[in-house]
Amino acid sequence: MVKPFWEKKRGGTVTSPKGFFASGVHCGIKRNRKKYDSALIYSPTPCVAAGTFTTNRLKAWPVLYSMRAVREARHHAILCSSGNANCINGSQGREAVDEAVATAAQLLKIEREEILIAQTGLIGVRFPITRFKRGIKRMVRRLSEEEKGGHAAARGLLTTDKRIKEMALSFYIGDQKVTIGAVAKGSGMVHPNMATMLAFITTDCSIAKPMLRRAIRHATDDTFNQIAIDNDMSTNDMVFVLANGLAMNQTIHKVDRDYRLFRDALEEVCRIMAYEMVRDGEGVSHVCTLRVRGAKNPTQAEKAARYIANSMLFKTMLAGADPNWGRIAAAVGASGVQFNPNHLNISFGNVTTVAGGILRASKLPKARKVLRRREYAIDVAIGKGRGRAEFITSDLTTKYVLINSAYS
Amino acid sequence: MVKPFWEKKRGGTVTSPKGFFASGVHCGIKRNRKKYDSALIYSPTPCVAAGTFTTNRLKAWPVLYSMRAVREARHHAILCSSGNANCINGSQGREAVDEAVATAAQLLKIEREEILIAQTGLIGVRFPITRFKRGIKRMVRRLSEEEKGGHAAARGLLTTDKRIKEMALSFYIGDQKVTIGAVAKGSGMVHPNMATMLAFITTDCSIAKPMLRRAIRHATDDTFNQIAIDNDMSTNDMVFVLANGLAMNQTIHKVDRDYRLFRDALEEVCRIMAYEMVRDGEGVSHVCTLRVRGAKNPTQAEKAARYIANSMLFKTMLAGADPNWGRIAAAVGASGVQFNPNHLNISFGNVTTVAGGILRASKLPKARKVLRRREYAIDVAIGKGRGRAEFITSDLTTKYVLINSAYS
Repeated sequence: MVKPFWEKKRGGTVTSPKGFFASGVHCGIKRNRKKYDSALIYSPTPCVAAGTFTTNRLKAWPVLYSMRAVREARHHAILCSSGNANCINGSQGREAVDEAVATAAQLLKIEREEILIAQTGLIGVRFPITRFKRGIKRMVRRLSEEEKGGHAAARGLLTTDKRIKEMALSFYIGDQKVTIGAVAKGSGMVHPNMATMLAFITTDCSIAKPMLRRAIRHATDDTFNQIAIDNDMSTNDMVFVLANGLAMNQTIHKVDRDYRLFRDALEEVCRIMAYEMVRDGEGVSHVCTLRVRGAKNPTQAEKAARYIANSMLFKTMLAGADPNWGRIAAAVGASGVQFNPNHLNISFGNVTTVAGGILRASKLPKARKVLRRREYAIDVAIGKGRGRAEFITSDLTTKYVLINSAYS
Repeated sequence: MVKPFWEKKRGGTVTSPKGFFASGVHCGIKRNRKKYDSALIYSPTPCVAAGTFTTNRLKAWPVLYSMRAVREARHHAILCSSGNANCINGSQGREAVDEAVATAAQLLKIEREEILIAQTGLIGVRFPITRFKRGIKRMVRRLSEEEKGGHAAARGLLTTDKRIKEMALSFYIGDQKVTIGAVAKGSGMVHPNMATMLAFITTDCSIAKPMLRRAIRHATDDTFNQIAIDNDMSTNDMVFVLANGLAMNQTIHKVDRDYRLFRDALEEVCRIMAYEMVRDGEGVSHVCTLRVRGAKNPTQAEKAARYIANSMLFKTMLAGADPNWGRIAAAVGASGVQFNPNHLNISFGNVTTVAGGILRASKLPKARKVLRRREYAIDVAIGKGRGRAEFITSDLTTKYVLINSAYS
């Protein structure tokens, strides 16, 4: 394995890059007082921002707000609440976003358009704006540049997640050390309504806004958009990145070596966060990295991988640790991609169980052993083409069904 | 409700139309001697035939054979085996189909091309052709024009199905009584591999081959293609219809009143069979008729309905009898169809729970009661358009996961 050019920071979070403050509190959106339900990330130095947004036609109020706001030239803050998705709840929801942003802008002494907002939780419920406004006041007072500030923010955006998801890594552009930090919440569904994948990324890299936009699109395409816990897309999914330039590297203006360094590091951050999300998905007992190769082109490879990764028969097979290759073959066929059964190769971990479309029955016990691990890879070759794709997927367990079929 | 023009026949099956013989036996493809694994349907009078075939790119050998054979002008028989899908098992599988068809043709004294063949069961396993050939000999000896012949055939094509699926109905074209009979097996997945939806339909209607083809396509589009147990498509799915003309009605040659009578009756047969399949699906405890209306056009309506019907969050919600409308709204949004949240109406049974995009919370207890029934309808209006679509879907239960995650 190639030694990575970046170094992961122990205890790292969104306050690890220079000049970022953060905080999180419980303000009363969630009933449980021990659970934080609000987060704030703030940079006194103006940042450039970029984001990616859910493609669900039904978009929550904070998504509609932030899609507009992100076009502005400079930003200072990301505001977040959890427990209430602020979605299809009438004009009160839109007003709640406006009030929340106005409150934060006034307290931070910045413009409203310099704030991005994300929310996650129950759909179709009135948003408790008074409580959130009180929470914003407390968060502004508590803003901290230390790791504990980032940790508090990481807690503030969780819903049914079992684990906090945060990290930071550093690398060099020229002689300047550049750091990227992130907090995220998983795409497992909130009980009892649909919830959301959120990721907030901070960096002290100096980079022009168009390049930041390009980098985050590239990074999310191959990471957050390639995970499959269930096949549902949330109304609130968003990824934000803020870059304040305090690393003092030469500003990235074009696609060059510096840009690629930054993009690769950003993609690594997104990949680790995405993997953590799948690992922490509802009722997940196995995490599978599914790699498809040999497709005619990358689009066909992705189509096949997405179909397999979301197939209920494939996901229940993972739950049962059963190397049932017929389900994989049938899923490839059902995906509609060009596919030659005589070129089908399937490996569970490093155990090649199907070669040239023929089962090697003697390998099944070893394959079964691989599938009993908590984490493993499955490789599927579907032809002689050059198209490749990778998905991170999880099993479908009775626990998932129990969590999601409980009464609201 | 309008009184139907057709009458359902008690105990009806594929031998109910005039001139059809059938039989079924255990020949040893399945281990359990009490389970039949072979079926034969035969008409001494030449029939016109039509069929619809799986769109999975990976097609089992019997599918490839029958897609060619069905183009011939006349047919006499449908041959079927269950327990082995005869799919991706190398050239031995193709030879097995040829041998089976040759054996049946010789014994029935007909041409090979006059036989259609279907198989269902495990993928990727050598087909036991010697046993099946012995089975064919016994089936030819046992062919019966009585109902017991049809019942035996209905047993012969089952896999994990808990119930036999067969029926017949009659109606009049002019003064002539026309009968349609059917046997089917469900699309619930075979333990442990993927299995198949099969339906064989017989009729004594006199109809030209192009019109029969047209009618069966129309009927399957709105029935078998609109059911959602899981989102996987089998390698072996087929529907066959044989028409021998013995009802002596004036032959249907064009789209006229007679054609429409026949087509509507055929669609009714397919609808009842499709509903039975969902009801008998693996681990199914609730059957939901999902109706989407108000879409821009029927294609958009179908897209939305298919997305909701296959959503794991929707299906687990049915398992929990939870009128969680946010999941329906989010699924419509995720489907990508044009959709106005302010026009969203959702009814569980006859309880309108969401009107104009607003939840009527007082209706929730009643809605919950509806969802506790074994069978009910959910109506979703997504706008003011004229597009409508209907899907039959089932819940996703822990039992489904247990059945499908068991070791092979």
